[in-house]
Amino acid sequence: MKNKFYQYIQNLQNQITSKLEEVDGLAKFREDLWQRPEGGGGRTRVIENGNVFEKGGVNISAVHGKLPDTMQQLFGVGEADFFACGLSLVIHPKNPMVPTVHANWRYFEMYDEKSNIINQWFGGGQDLTPYYLFEDDAIHFHQTCKTACDKHNPNFYPDYKKKCDEYFWNTHRNEARGIGGLFFDYLKASQTMSMEDWYNFVTEVGNSFLEAYIPIVEKRKDLPYTNANRTWQEIRRGRYVEFNLVHDKGTLFGLKTNGRIESILMSLPPHVQWVYNHQPEVESEEEKLLNVLKNPIDWIKL
Amino acid sequence: MKNKFYQYIQNLQNQITSKLEEVDGLAKFREDLWQRPEGGGGRTRVIENGNVFEKGGVNISAVHGKLPDTMQQLFGVGEADFFACGLSLVIHPKNPMVPTVHANWRYFEMYDEKSNIINQWFGGGQDLTPYYLFEDDAIHFHQTCKTACDKHNPNFYPDYKKKCDEYFWNTHRNEARGIGGLFFDYLKASQTMSMEDWYNFVTEVGNSFLEAYIPIVEKRKDLPYTNANRTWQEIRRGRYVEFNLVHDKGTLFGLKTNGRIESILMSLPPHVQWVYNHQPEVESEEEKLLNVLKNPIDWIKL
Repeated sequence: MKNKFYQYIQNLQNQITSKLEEVDGLAKFREDLWQRPEGGGGRTRVIENGNVFEKGGVNISAVHGKLPDTMQQLFGVGEADFFACGLSLVIHPKNPMVPTVHANWRYFEMYDEKSNIINQWFGGGQDLTPYYLFEDDAIHFHQTCKTACDKHNPNFYPDYKKKCDEYFWNTHRNEARGIGGLFFDYLKASQTMSMEDWYNFVTEVGNSFLEAYIPIVEKRKDLPYTNANRTWQEIRRGRYVEFNLVHDKGTLFGLKTNGRIESILMSLPPHVQWVYNHQPEVESEEEKLLNVLKNPIDWIKL
Repeated sequence: MKNKFYQYIQNLQNQITSKLEEVDGLAKFREDLWQRPEGGGGRTRVIENGNVFEKGGVNISAVHGKLPDTMQQLFGVGEADFFACGLSLVIHPKNPMVPTVHANWRYFEMYDEKSNIINQWFGGGQDLTPYYLFEDDAIHFHQTCKTACDKHNPNFYPDYKKKCDEYFWNTHRNEARGIGGLFFDYLKASQTMSMEDWYNFVTEVGNSFLEAYIPIVEKRKDLPYTNANRTWQEIRRGRYVEFNLVHDKGTLFGLKTNGRIESILMSLPPHVQWVYNHQPEVESEEEKLLNVLKNPIDWIKL
């Protein structure tokens, strides 16, 4: 399974970076290969200062070795060997009318002293962070998520949509990071779902990513915008930074386990502002977004 | 003691904000009074878009009531009543040749059920974060700190300088946030120092703040700078954000105990950049700063 899934994310990385380069039309991804001293490594691909994409990273990694202390605590287990691989991406477009997107698909294995697998699971998801709310885009993104989920189980979309709203919540602001999507973790073999079934589900979601995001980019990338729109985008990106550095388990985990810093923090936006006590104007487009972030919406009536 | 110290920080806030307005010559501090539902409140003063100061806050607060759960855990105590007051300031100048400065002076009391004081201490410090290193400025700042400390005990400057280097350390970058200054905490009555002695020491440091910082501002505020200097400043401010959101106990404590968010996060810089894997040119001024941040210097030979 680990080889099959790593093969899958290698291909998916190629597919996604090719498509993003094609849409951008100017910038190319720069590739950095890195090794983890304790075992494994990764292939980081970063795009900067494009026509469409101001900054973005599409990274894969496959690491293995002794389970670090912090992971032992997280999982509530003792010493063990592990393998983990995944694809992580964050794309920050230049035009404030185009949303930021984040996605991640990962697989984890733990072994006993005889190298038997004692635990294995998938995790991941994809979610959208707009600066201006186009309801059509929100519905398109969520509908694509739902279509992928529904091929496997009608409960997956509502369950993982809810988990996404809960996970990407800036508790100190009492608002969501964005308008959500899917979030799932610890997908383990059960009576109804084998690991093979979960593989099929997770790759179905992975395969839906470009379909979920690219049409939105194409539709909005040439819309006109003002300096005020751009300021609002940079202020909202500040909230993105706050979430990733204060609350995001993946980021903090990476920072505290001596991960490759530049690969972890490629998720941070290029230009960001913090303005004291910024409040959008009453009944503005900015306020409309905030209202939705404070009260997440069911974009698809079930 | 609590009334005396709160009176002191009220006056100090007035003194510091007046002086900063005078130096800026354009912007004025905006004042927000706020109440804490559980008891107490504060006086937040923020300056933005000045001639000299791009963003800064000089805040005081005095809060009291039941010790929140998170503080009980932090201090390793059970339920108790508490009082805490302090002044916190962060100033981000516009010109990259002028350093950012942070300072904080605080006093804490805890009570038994009969309202007797069972514990009390002072804490605080002041530290400098330059974007370009002028050694004269570093020496002036540290010398002013040392002069204030030496009036009380010759060990204070070396001890609290070391604590400052240790505290403001971005472990995930393996570099200091800035070039340090003083940091002290849990200053409690002992055989050699009464609370009155500590009050005299802490206020001595507080009184030295303008002398430590303003001459540096005056000397550097009109230096010419390029867009490249400004970009470097914004990238370094990203490290400031990383420290404050990932490592700073004061910030995280505030975020997790339902403090007034805008007063806590006024410390974040106005314009910030994250550039993937940015490396300064060899033997540049930018590299010179990084070398000092990676290997903190004793600015004053003892």
